[in-house]
Amino acid sequence: MSVTSAQGFIAAGASGGLKSSGEKDVALVVNTGPESHACAVFTTNRFAAAPVLWSRAVLADLDARVVVLNSGGANACTGPDGFTDTHRTAEFVAKVLTQGGIVECAGGDVVVCSTGIIGDRIDMAALERGVHLCSESLSSDGGLHAAQAIMTTDTVPKVATCEGSGYSVGGMAKGAGMLAPGMATMLCVITTDASIPIDWMQESLEHCTSRSFDRLDSDGCMSTNDTVVLLANGASGYEPIREDFEKVLFAVCDELSIALRADAEGSTKDISIQVLGAHTEKQAVEVGRAVARSNLFKCAMFGEDPNWGRILSAVGTTNAQFEPDRVNVSINGIQICTNGSAGESRDGVDLSGRHVEVIIDLREGEAQATIRTNDLSLAYVHENSAYST
Amino acid sequence: MSVTSAQGFIAAGASGGLKSSGEKDVALVVNTGPESHACAVFTTNRFAAAPVLWSRAVLADLDARVVVLNSGGANACTGPDGFTDTHRTAEFVAKVLTQGGIVECAGGDVVVCSTGIIGDRIDMAALERGVHLCSESLSSDGGLHAAQAIMTTDTVPKVATCEGSGYSVGGMAKGAGMLAPGMATMLCVITTDASIPIDWMQESLEHCTSRSFDRLDSDGCMSTNDTVVLLANGASGYEPIREDFEKVLFAVCDELSIALRADAEGSTKDISIQVLGAHTEKQAVEVGRAVARSNLFKCAMFGEDPNWGRILSAVGTTNAQFEPDRVNVSINGIQICTNGSAGESRDGVDLSGRHVEVIIDLREGEAQATIRTNDLSLAYVHENSAYST
Repeated sequence: MSVTSAQGFIAAGASGGLKSSGEKDVALVVNTGPESHACAVFTTNRFAAAPVLWSRAVLADLDARVVVLNSGGANACTGPDGFTDTHRTAEFVAKVLTQGGIVECAGGDVVVCSTGIIGDRIDMAALERGVHLCSESLSSDGGLHAAQAIMTTDTVPKVATCEGSGYSVGGMAKGAGMLAPGMATMLCVITTDASIPIDWMQESLEHCTSRSFDRLDSDGCMSTNDTVVLLANGASGYEPIREDFEKVLFAVCDELSIALRADAEGSTKDISIQVLGAHTEKQAVEVGRAVARSNLFKCAMFGEDPNWGRILSAVGTTNAQFEPDRVNVSINGIQICTNGSAGESRDGVDLSGRHVEVIIDLREGEAQATIRTNDLSLAYVHENSAYST
Repeated sequence: MSVTSAQGFIAAGASGGLKSSGEKDVALVVNTGPESHACAVFTTNRFAAAPVLWSRAVLADLDARVVVLNSGGANACTGPDGFTDTHRTAEFVAKVLTQGGIVECAGGDVVVCSTGIIGDRIDMAALERGVHLCSESLSSDGGLHAAQAIMTTDTVPKVATCEGSGYSVGGMAKGAGMLAPGMATMLCVITTDASIPIDWMQESLEHCTSRSFDRLDSDGCMSTNDTVVLLANGASGYEPIREDFEKVLFAVCDELSIALRADAEGSTKDISIQVLGAHTEKQAVEVGRAVARSNLFKCAMFGEDPNWGRILSAVGTTNAQFEPDRVNVSINGIQICTNGSAGESRDGVDLSGRHVEVIIDLREGEAQATIRTNDLSLAYVHENSAYST
């Protein structure tokens, strides 16, 4: 399952001591070949963490053998010393794997991902201890251990797989807070034993992440470390056509996105904001995101209050094309707002369950998009007011 | 004090029955002349409430005699019927004031402001009862009563005055939640007995509100009803030069902005985010607002946690010009981030008081701006998850 469901991938997770809890905090994902095609999408945050800067360089040639990941420290905003730590990590991983006879590789073949508190240096001794332990337990059954090792405030490991015809795609992800946009604050590794040409691999990954992870906006906060890596080894001997591969890859991305939303810090509601009738898909996304970022809307959802006025007031801040007196809004199947004014009775809206479906029909065009978010709960505030202390 | 500190203005506040609590809910501010110059800035929300649509039309000629305000109902998203209610309110006020021999005016001289829940029709009988009661108690001592009548979740009335040389400027405001941007969710009436030429009155008001109310961003949510009205009657016989008047007007706007922040729903911190060294003032505002809207930053402030990583990760989402490895951040006088990395020890930061001063130095240029905000507290979530029920 997970990153080891595809042939030719081995993985492991171990506790090196980065987390004071003693839980697993270092993971390795190793591609044993034959091919080593690789690509990634990264955070657009301008304070990109050292591992992001490093991994961008590693993947410039669309080739990588290994991903090393750690929780217990983001290595972000750590300056040149932080970058040296990441470089040293990659070299160390390459040396351990090569000397151990696992795969022949150099530091430049190793993608590095880190997550945790921003601003602190990584405990390199603990990280290297974790790498050593992982190297000794790498196996094709190690996917779940790796997924556990990248958890921070996550309460469950997140894994997904999807079978193509003749090949497999599997992935793992972590993320629970700082979940937005241009990816949630998250790390994700996806592997496939399909043979994927490097001339469209990157575009395919972006196509899939832009419609899955990029439309998850739990708390509007963008991280410094977001990374989604895709590794492809061709071990199945199968080269899918692009459209088919993108369907399978999207299914894995989408399933992981839903798992991230379900585990968002302190959340009590999983909310889908579907925007219909938009002039363009981009405008649909803009409208959905504006609502997903309204703290007043999110508080109302926590309070199970179908306060559609807060939805319209958020929609009204956008530049999307619409006529205010034509907009309809439904919550869980009840059209409480018709033509920009009160519609059916709010008493009919049942918000007692975890799932909330908001539909905003702009009645302007044919485009649509769905943004996923969560409510703003007392537990979110509690958890995030005490995170680094 | 307040809207009646300037000569020639009378005001009143009364309980018409819009609020189930029986508290005051209708206010009148009347300009007895001689001049009746008037202008306003309004919300940019595209779901602008009926009173905003009406008052924009009233003020197209930069002339108005009266402002009628009500709490207990925003009359927003109420369609054509809501607009008819506002029109009827203005006509009713004009009739009562004219028949009562208070001032001669028509409906087109009456600015209307409403605040409260979005989406419900106004109880016109209650509103008209309140107007009647106000008309009987209008006086030059009525400023505070008017300020009380426009409170919603406000815990205190907000008033301010400032003396120019030979004239006076005074104002009142309400606002506690949905406080952002392009004005907080707020109503504000400012009066002056200076004689202000209509050829620069509107520009002066925009100059002052854009640097005061527009830089208050308590919860990132923009209202449908925001209105700041300025009335000038020339009763002092004094015509100030523009620069001097703007200083006095700004002082009133700024003091009211600070009062709004201090009363923000559930807040435990008054936070000033000062952005220095920006390439342009607009970029400084963009950076300050990005931080003011980070829920993770706001939660950290509530938890008295000087989590500068969350500040940088918000700054990193902007398009402002800066080099990540040159940015400095101070919290309450301690430079905890130097050159984009850890600076002085976070242990030195005292966040126990209500006031928090964040300074972000982009070290790129000479421009600066300050955004005011609040923390994200358990009380904010609690209050806003139970507002309309």
